[in-house]
Amino acid sequence: MIKILVDAMGGDKAPAAIVQGAVQALEKDRDLHLIFTGRQSEIQAELNKLKYDKARVEIADCQDVIDMNDNPVEAVRRSDSSMMKAYAMLRKQDDICAFVTAGSTGAAIAGGQILLGRIRGVKRAALCPAIPNSRGHVTLLCDCGANTECKPIMLCQFALLASAYAKVGFGIANPKVGLLNNGTEEHKGDALRQETYKYLSEMQGVDFIGNVEGRDIMIGECDVVVADGYTGNIALKSIEGCGKLMLGVMKKEFSATLRSKIGYLFLKKAIKNMRGQLDFEKAGGALLLGLKKVVVKSHGSSKPQTIAAAIANAANIYRGGLVPAVEKSLESVDLNSIIMESAE
Amino acid sequence: MIKILVDAMGGDKAPAAIVQGAVQALEKDRDLHLIFTGRQSEIQAELNKLKYDKARVEIADCQDVIDMNDNPVEAVRRSDSSMMKAYAMLRKQDDICAFVTAGSTGAAIAGGQILLGRIRGVKRAALCPAIPNSRGHVTLLCDCGANTECKPIMLCQFALLASAYAKVGFGIANPKVGLLNNGTEEHKGDALRQETYKYLSEMQGVDFIGNVEGRDIMIGECDVVVADGYTGNIALKSIEGCGKLMLGVMKKEFSATLRSKIGYLFLKKAIKNMRGQLDFEKAGGALLLGLKKVVVKSHGSSKPQTIAAAIANAANIYRGGLVPAVEKSLESVDLNSIIMESAE
Repeated sequence: MIKILVDAMGGDKAPAAIVQGAVQALEKDRDLHLIFTGRQSEIQAELNKLKYDKARVEIADCQDVIDMNDNPVEAVRRSDSSMMKAYAMLRKQDDICAFVTAGSTGAAIAGGQILLGRIRGVKRAALCPAIPNSRGHVTLLCDCGANTECKPIMLCQFALLASAYAKVGFGIANPKVGLLNNGTEEHKGDALRQETYKYLSEMQGVDFIGNVEGRDIMIGECDVVVADGYTGNIALKSIEGCGKLMLGVMKKEFSATLRSKIGYLFLKKAIKNMRGQLDFEKAGGALLLGLKKVVVKSHGSSKPQTIAAAIANAANIYRGGLVPAVEKSLESVDLNSIIMESAE
Repeated sequence: MIKILVDAMGGDKAPAAIVQGAVQALEKDRDLHLIFTGRQSEIQAELNKLKYDKARVEIADCQDVIDMNDNPVEAVRRSDSSMMKAYAMLRKQDDICAFVTAGSTGAAIAGGQILLGRIRGVKRAALCPAIPNSRGHVTLLCDCGANTECKPIMLCQFALLASAYAKVGFGIANPKVGLLNNGTEEHKGDALRQETYKYLSEMQGVDFIGNVEGRDIMIGECDVVVADGYTGNIALKSIEGCGKLMLGVMKKEFSATLRSKIGYLFLKKAIKNMRGQLDFEKAGGALLLGLKKVVVKSHGSSKPQTIAAAIANAANIYRGGLVPAVEKSLESVDLNSIIMESAE
């Protein structure tokens, strides 16, 4: 049995979309057992609309809900909130494997680091989404927003953490790692990039291929792209904006004339396939890497199928043994001996 | 008459694509007069394949060509190169209005700052492409790679420079300016972003709307997005990669089955329209803002129509009076009084 906590109140469409998605996940995975945190009456009302296996669902009642606009660090103190209650349970109960939330990213990061805690040796947790790439696979972009300002040792750890995730979550035996930079040459970038380049080149346990550019996230040659959280966030959201614009223009053009409407009928399936390949919400949310248990942050605008994918992803990552893999990879590499000057 | 220099040897497809594109531009604009810099025999051989108005074309012969891999600062000394010869002529000859190159970005920036020089008061030149957005217009992203490390005063100047470009080049009367950040809240970002936010809020002559995210470049509410060159480059190339992936997936899916091939026949025009709206090479290259004359950097893989668009854009910007507009906007704002602590 895999016990997973689900924040029923986080996200724009909570609790309805969360509960629906969770029930979808339950149907697909007979091993799954879910515990919702949130307002019991609201959650139960949503559950009552659905068919589900009652033996595999619990509700941990709490009244408070953290908003996207709440200050993340202050939010951590709100122990009766659906998110912080989940973190407290995750920490205390050994039999709970993972936590999925579509709530505030900032609060999820703060709560994870403060209430759940980091794996021994991890400097900072990082947000790591899986982005579809032209090889029909995914690129892990780490960090994507948890750490606005970074030091080289943090970026080196992100490389280790995301490599472990690539192995465990996506079965990539030897993940290739690139450093996000404004050009591929070794000397490119600011002091942070230049220093990190040097350390990554010398590091054991990371298959570093050098600098990569923004375009390589989606079309490139590596499985992991390492970035500070500020830049990773800009890259991720630039991609999101481009995707939205293109799909929007496509929709407009494909319904502009009778001729194009007819064409659309023929291409409907191809367009659905295309959207499927490009929909990175289906990829299962962003992992909060470096924490003591598996935590998946799903998009704030998550639909039921997004939540279902995030829960399935969390179960998959737990089964793959992410946390032990991260522990092992940290033990095998003595980062501090490489990086003396940038140690915090 | 508008006299424009064209680097005939810069770019992957030079000199053929450059010469062809230049002749296309000549045909469309009877006022244009072009001077190619580069190997006379090779340029003439390309010209001989085309019909063109001989009275409006000159060649300034030189033998050296700067490569994408050459060190930019060292490249500046190579005065017999097609790029540096053009810069020397641009500086000396008052009747030459602008310069278009598809050669090395780094060398174009270095040559521009060293050989041509910046407008009085400009701290650093910036690379500023026009990116299509969901309003059917363009967003100017400034800087996109000229300055890897920036201070707040530089970002504030980029806001002024790009606002002048938006007015002159795209007829936007009151360009709205956003600061590229990892969230829209005022406190977001690193020290550079937080400080710049404060200054931009107080600045005259800039219609600052606050922080914008990566997605806002293509779908957002502002005309100018201000970034340091490192981040701007990551954003631009992330968008480029996403666009390439989507068009690639579309092509694959639309030719996968007989059904989809039939649909494609009906949608051909719509897809062409779509590509047209999303093709930011057609938008006329990236402007090197802050230099004493108009300099347009076209993509290294420029096709003839890309070069034609870049030349047309250069003529348009010159006619609009970009350099005087920048001078005027710099005079009207006393940046140093706002930004004491970040002055270089």
